[in-house]
Amino acid sequence: MPLAKDLDSYLAANRAGSREELFDFLRIPSVSARSEHNADTARAADWVATSLRMIGLEATIHPTKGHPIVVGEWRKAPPGAQTVLIYGHYDVQPAEPLDLWESPPFEPTIREGKIFARGSVDDKGQLYLHIKALQAHLAARGKLPVNVIVLAEGEEEVGSENLEAFIEANKTLLKCDAVVISDSAMFAPGLPSILSSLRGIAYFQIDVQGPSGDLHSGMYGGAIMNPAMALARILATMHDADGHITIPGFYDKVRDWGDVARQQVKSLPFKDETFRHETGSPELGGEKGYTTLERVWMRPTCEVNGLLSGYTGEGAKTVLPAKAMAKVSCRLVPDQTPDEIEAVMRAHVERVAPKGVTVTVRHLHGGRPWRADLGGPLFDAARRALAAAFDREPVITGEGGSIPVVGDFQRILKAPVLLVGFGLPGENAHAPNEWMSEDNYHRGTSAMAALWDELARSSS
Amino acid sequence: MPLAKDLDSYLAANRAGSREELFDFLRIPSVSARSEHNADTARAADWVATSLRMIGLEATIHPTKGHPIVVGEWRKAPPGAQTVLIYGHYDVQPAEPLDLWESPPFEPTIREGKIFARGSVDDKGQLYLHIKALQAHLAARGKLPVNVIVLAEGEEEVGSENLEAFIEANKTLLKCDAVVISDSAMFAPGLPSILSSLRGIAYFQIDVQGPSGDLHSGMYGGAIMNPAMALARILATMHDADGHITIPGFYDKVRDWGDVARQQVKSLPFKDETFRHETGSPELGGEKGYTTLERVWMRPTCEVNGLLSGYTGEGAKTVLPAKAMAKVSCRLVPDQTPDEIEAVMRAHVERVAPKGVTVTVRHLHGGRPWRADLGGPLFDAARRALAAAFDREPVITGEGGSIPVVGDFQRILKAPVLLVGFGLPGENAHAPNEWMSEDNYHRGTSAMAALWDELARSSS
Repeated sequence: MPLAKDLDSYLAANRAGSREELFDFLRIPSVSARSEHNADTARAADWVATSLRMIGLEATIHPTKGHPIVVGEWRKAPPGAQTVLIYGHYDVQPAEPLDLWESPPFEPTIREGKIFARGSVDDKGQLYLHIKALQAHLAARGKLPVNVIVLAEGEEEVGSENLEAFIEANKTLLKCDAVVISDSAMFAPGLPSILSSLRGIAYFQIDVQGPSGDLHSGMYGGAIMNPAMALARILATMHDADGHITIPGFYDKVRDWGDVARQQVKSLPFKDETFRHETGSPELGGEKGYTTLERVWMRPTCEVNGLLSGYTGEGAKTVLPAKAMAKVSCRLVPDQTPDEIEAVMRAHVERVAPKGVTVTVRHLHGGRPWRADLGGPLFDAARRALAAAFDREPVITGEGGSIPVVGDFQRILKAPVLLVGFGLPGENAHAPNEWMSEDNYHRGTSAMAALWDELARSSS
Repeated sequence: MPLAKDLDSYLAANRAGSREELFDFLRIPSVSARSEHNADTARAADWVATSLRMIGLEATIHPTKGHPIVVGEWRKAPPGAQTVLIYGHYDVQPAEPLDLWESPPFEPTIREGKIFARGSVDDKGQLYLHIKALQAHLAARGKLPVNVIVLAEGEEEVGSENLEAFIEANKTLLKCDAVVISDSAMFAPGLPSILSSLRGIAYFQIDVQGPSGDLHSGMYGGAIMNPAMALARILATMHDADGHITIPGFYDKVRDWGDVARQQVKSLPFKDETFRHETGSPELGGEKGYTTLERVWMRPTCEVNGLLSGYTGEGAKTVLPAKAMAKVSCRLVPDQTPDEIEAVMRAHVERVAPKGVTVTVRHLHGGRPWRADLGGPLFDAARRALAAAFDREPVITGEGGSIPVVGDFQRILKAPVLLVGFGLPGENAHAPNEWMSEDNYHRGTSAMAALWDELARSSS
């Protein structure tokens, strides 16, 4: 069903104004990682709160130990209406290196339909299009078909350190039936996308201790176990020749994705050679029996992130190192948990560790994988809203990385999370010349305006 | 046969003087690695030349691109007498860290029969005892039973960079029937030792390149070969579970040492537990079927000296590294050569390298192994001379490290090399509180004085 005429007319009439307001937002250098920008970051929080009030929401700025969290509320929907929480962030990545920007990072500039600015797509543009979608309802009709909470944080680019505690402490304030987040990208231009899965992570450090100090490799070499060689042997036991992980119990909790999901992934427009070229690898690799997108989205991994032992400078030094270290992380898929993977990793390393060295495994951090339940009314509504705005059925995509906040919302608020993003591949989210498609900005606004009508219709 | 009475009387009467002269030598801070000590190092060369002249040799100071080489000569032995070349070095290691010395490094001090000073055992004491042994002959008899060349260099502690070229360019000047070097240690106190073997080395750097830059392990992990994991797998193919090296062709040139040599090693007073305690390793390891000393002296190795890849700092970083590096060195035994080991290493790494990465092997440096032929008159003479001075038959020992100059002398001058040292375990050769046993200094002088009589007797 197309977007309601009243909303569509309102948005069409206000496109230029919407863009100008976004530009004002983008001009604030709210770099959360830099304390010299603390005043700017605070100003961005104020700007969001003011915007929410101007369109008719109540807004509160909640201080945290770091940057504040802005919460906007509109709770005047008819009895029985759903309550939705829209999450976004008003902070941005640092802009350096500045000399690689073709136009200044905090002076938004349009070239070839792209809005170039730090934060354009990550995440100010995607947060603000939600505000404009809400405004369309309130301006055209004086009301929304759902109750709305907007939560905008200022620490997403520095690890969202205060968010989980805030959600936990404000469960009643934030109670909702659905969470909507726009902080991701569409799979390809023109192809609206719903992100249906995230991988989790279990990150370890493996330390191998041999002799108590570095030894001369001539005087001692051959008579004691070399810790770096021991580490290499441990790591080499973690995969077989087909790329399967050989840690006993590792796959026990991996849920079968089913033919439908695999078929969805196979239907996406994707070329291995393009992906390979993007990485610069001589050749793609990975687990036998799976496509590249399945390997990255649906399958768990076991990767070395770092190695250190002995002498690593120029030339030759004949040291028999006292110790060797590896950072090893596993990307997890439902229903693996970091704790269970820690247990099988520890047991495996203990079993394969050569004699003559002491091996310790530390679990540095973990995060659970996430997979959306695509069957509910929220996703049906999102499919219809995206199809209306983009004239094309949305695709279901996955993501190999982790967005811990998604799991936090789902776990604490017990509400389904919809990840619907309007970025595009190559958008330079954390790099110079970040951009957002202007067309996606406006279509995204329309889609999100349509979403609330569709959701009200689904659930009524 | 005991040391001749005339020599013994002379040495007994001059012990205090000999020690005082050595102390003068030790007071010169001839640290070859430090340019601020260049004048001191030159002064040490002068001091050696003057000492040689005072006992009756002709001496020349040969400039090099670095520190000078001092050559002393006495060529008045009867026709048909052998010519021997005595090698030593007058430079010393830096003394730092100074605060760990119990007495100043360049102010020789005797405590509990030990001469404490930088260079006491490495190698000024062992060079000067040769000069005093020559003096005993020349002072007591006015002659030596052999022609003598003394070659003292000033760059041993910085890699002897100009020595090989000097020997090559002065083959006629240095032509001799035997080379004697005292720059090593006895196996145990009271146990005179002849060092009969040195291991060689082939030192490699293995570089594994995957993607062109570091990637996000979430977005790409699972779909490309991880270079650090690839490196671990390559390294893990180099040994079997029994510690044998599994690089095809690696053992092809390894000469059998024979039961006699193995029995000699087995007869030495050696305790695995003492050695293990010295290393601080939880447990000894190495190749099955060999004892610890055999593993260190008679068997080749393949060791990791360094590893580097990706993120090695505190905590977790989810990087899929672009590259990984290992320093890998093999200690070699006769008749392995660095070039042949390079060839089998390259072929092996190429064969086992996983797909999806580019692997390169660089040979950073090499040195041949060395083994003495213990059958000739030089070694018979040395055995008798050592037995006379120490009241005990000498033992034959090996050394797991390399002393490249030994091979250079043997190869260029085509003369056998006798390695007979008077240091002791725990002498702190390159550490604070370096010491030489005063008793060994005097017994070493007697042994070397006896050596020339014994050698003249053997070869006449």
